[in-house]
Amino acid sequence: MERVEVEPILEQVRAAIAAQDWERAVALVEALRPPDQAEIFGDLPPAEQDQLLPHLDLEDSADILEELEEEEAVEVAKRLDANELARILDEMEPDEAADLVGDLTPERAAEALAAMEEPDEVRPLLLHADESAGGLMTSVKVLLHKGMTAEGAIAYLRAVAPESDDVYYLFVVDQDMRLVGVVSLRQLVVSPPWKRVEDIMDPDVIYVRADTDQEEAARLMARYDLLALPVVDEHRRMLGIITHDDLVEVLEEEATEDIYRLGGVLDENPPDVPIPAALRTRLPWLVLNLGTALASATILSAFESTIARVAVLAAFFPIVAGVSGSAGTQTLTVTVRGLALGELSPRDALPAIGREMLIGLANGVAIGGLVAIIALVWKDTPLLGAVVGVATLLNMIGAGIAGALVPVLMQALKIDPALASPILVTTITDASGYFIYLGLATLVFTGWI
Amino acid sequence: MERVEVEPILEQVRAAIAAQDWERAVALVEALRPPDQAEIFGDLPPAEQDQLLPHLDLEDSADILEELEEEEAVEVAKRLDANELARILDEMEPDEAADLVGDLTPERAAEALAAMEEPDEVRPLLLHADESAGGLMTSVKVLLHKGMTAEGAIAYLRAVAPESDDVYYLFVVDQDMRLVGVVSLRQLVVSPPWKRVEDIMDPDVIYVRADTDQEEAARLMARYDLLALPVVDEHRRMLGIITHDDLVEVLEEEATEDIYRLGGVLDENPPDVPIPAALRTRLPWLVLNLGTALASATILSAFESTIARVAVLAAFFPIVAGVSGSAGTQTLTVTVRGLALGELSPRDALPAIGREMLIGLANGVAIGGLVAIIALVWKDTPLLGAVVGVATLLNMIGAGIAGALVPVLMQALKIDPALASPILVTTITDASGYFIYLGLATLVFTGWI
Repeated sequence: MERVEVEPILEQVRAAIAAQDWERAVALVEALRPPDQAEIFGDLPPAEQDQLLPHLDLEDSADILEELEEEEAVEVAKRLDANELARILDEMEPDEAADLVGDLTPERAAEALAAMEEPDEVRPLLLHADESAGGLMTSVKVLLHKGMTAEGAIAYLRAVAPESDDVYYLFVVDQDMRLVGVVSLRQLVVSPPWKRVEDIMDPDVIYVRADTDQEEAARLMARYDLLALPVVDEHRRMLGIITHDDLVEVLEEEATEDIYRLGGVLDENPPDVPIPAALRTRLPWLVLNLGTALASATILSAFESTIARVAVLAAFFPIVAGVSGSAGTQTLTVTVRGLALGELSPRDALPAIGREMLIGLANGVAIGGLVAIIALVWKDTPLLGAVVGVATLLNMIGAGIAGALVPVLMQALKIDPALASPILVTTITDASGYFIYLGLATLVFTGWI
Repeated sequence: MERVEVEPILEQVRAAIAAQDWERAVALVEALRPPDQAEIFGDLPPAEQDQLLPHLDLEDSADILEELEEEEAVEVAKRLDANELARILDEMEPDEAADLVGDLTPERAAEALAAMEEPDEVRPLLLHADESAGGLMTSVKVLLHKGMTAEGAIAYLRAVAPESDDVYYLFVVDQDMRLVGVVSLRQLVVSPPWKRVEDIMDPDVIYVRADTDQEEAARLMARYDLLALPVVDEHRRMLGIITHDDLVEVLEEEATEDIYRLGGVLDENPPDVPIPAALRTRLPWLVLNLGTALASATILSAFESTIARVAVLAAFFPIVAGVSGSAGTQTLTVTVRGLALGELSPRDALPAIGREMLIGLANGVAIGGLVAIIALVWKDTPLLGAVVGVATLLNMIGAGIAGALVPVLMQALKIDPALASPILVTTITDASGYFIYLGLATLVFTGWI
């Protein structure tokens, strides 16, 4: 089966709900996989969600709450009574349940936890910061003791976790619950039954501390191609594991964050975010942008008399400032992404800035030459062509330097380069573009040369 | 163990190579995991790579060539003789070997394949386009027949694939090699030994055709949380599987591509790309940008006499055009990312454009008001304040509409919105900003009102 088209099924589900045909509505939902179930459920109006949910079995309800967008799940959870919610939470993966409980009001969270049958799988997960490895981890269902035999371990697995299909690695602990190794189910299966786990396992296991940043944990999993990453406390005692679905989520989240920040959007802005929330993530940036635009405005204002005398100069503002701005953005983009992916390390910073300066020089010769020809042909003024061309050339070099230097400096100052760099680089290329261009023009056209 | 610091080890390896102490150099490398081995190897100068490689065993050499950046691996492979290369290729994962062979010259590839012991694992993988599911897949080592028993399947696994740790799902085929189901190793282990695979397996297996785009395949794996995705031909016969490490790679690649394109960089630009290659990915974009900047230049030129008479107008160019440009970029960023993540579907397009128009209105009232006050206080001219403020307000609304409309249209036209939208949106906000501002100013200040 390939990906399901959910649109037509959504219509059928809504028709069944409208007809109060619960058997059909449930059958339609049950035939789908959890992500598709959640997509359809999320697209229903709240009243229909509330009508449908009690007819679904607990497992489907849990799947849907796990797969819904966080904010959508919270809205649904808010409208459930504490007992219903608790029964669904009991069915959910502990990390997903903890994320949901963590988003409720403290009173509501306490109520729901009190009504749960197995709150102890969820409670410890609530203690860790959202963006840390601890906030990402889930409880481990199966831990092997290093003294078990292969046969004993498989029998234990059969008894304890006959249902969970996500047991790829089995982590091995000693009597103090300290992580001492990892063994794959395959290794257990192909080993002689009497062999001890500690003689089969790989003792060189990669782990993180609970307070590690989630991005670092995800990068470790991606780098070493891990399906599960154990999370330990300061004594190396097992606290939980991060599973591969979290890896994908964190990587997407971090990519989205970088894309947003490079685009001047301060926080998540899904297409259905309310307008006031969208304004909160965008307006402060525009105000800051307005502040930096004043730098350019001041420079333009200082050259007012030159502009008044040679108004033709204004025609080339978008070219001198705009194209250099684009060049600066290119350099910035490459540098920020290189830093994020770890391809660019601090020791490469100086050569990288040098390279970008040379690229700026080459771009500047090409674009500056073109601009000079355009100015010459269009306005029939060789001097203007020379001024515009030289200004563009110089500003392109500056754009290359600023585009590489600013993010490297931000990184060194522990400020996210994706957040702080675009506005600074644009301000620099803009202001310096106007200054170089109008400065040159003043020298040339007002006869100070 | 947490992530290894490779820097100090690199120095030790280089010292050992300089001293021709191969035993030490090899021991240092062997103590590391493949990604760390590759990082160190990639940082060695080519001459040292060539000296070290023959001393490493084939498995380490294969790991290193798998983990190196593609271009680095090709450079190393080019310098090996065909027999050495073939022996390493035999040790590599078939998909990685195929990627490497595919990047060699046709003669060199033919030589290497001819010298391989198992070229047939690699040859079929060479037939598919690089960015397709077929180009991503690797050969399947273990396929179960639906008639096998659970016990028989485990015995078969023990015999065929005692080494491969990446057997999470076992795919089940019928006598015609058609994919009919999937079973996990865990399900096999916990089932009664006499039970037949077809009675244990899940027949509802998700697969893709070999010509499916790699991004779609990756999105399927991410959505349904799959560790392996089977790739089939038009008769649903198994061709191979895409493994989860490819998922992470494709998602990162696609995120990088979007970030690059939004930043006006046409193709990958790692920090060590040669300058001419960097220019090829950037200069065409700047030339195009120059072309669109001419639209704004033409408008400015048309208002030359207004600028000459009221030169103070120029001071506000960076504000009217620049801040609206930033607002347009914000809208664009949110829209492009929403489309890429599938959060924004065509049927949401109209409401999304309406929302962004309203956000533009709200931003415009706030920023336009601020700008008017700044103009009033700074230049002490109420009329100028009114003109600048109204122009900013109108242009912010335009930026909201353009920022949402352009990417949606591009998507409808099957053009990558991340590629085409930024330059169009900037051109529109720039040109319309100058036009609205100078048009209003001409009406107000030259007495045409």
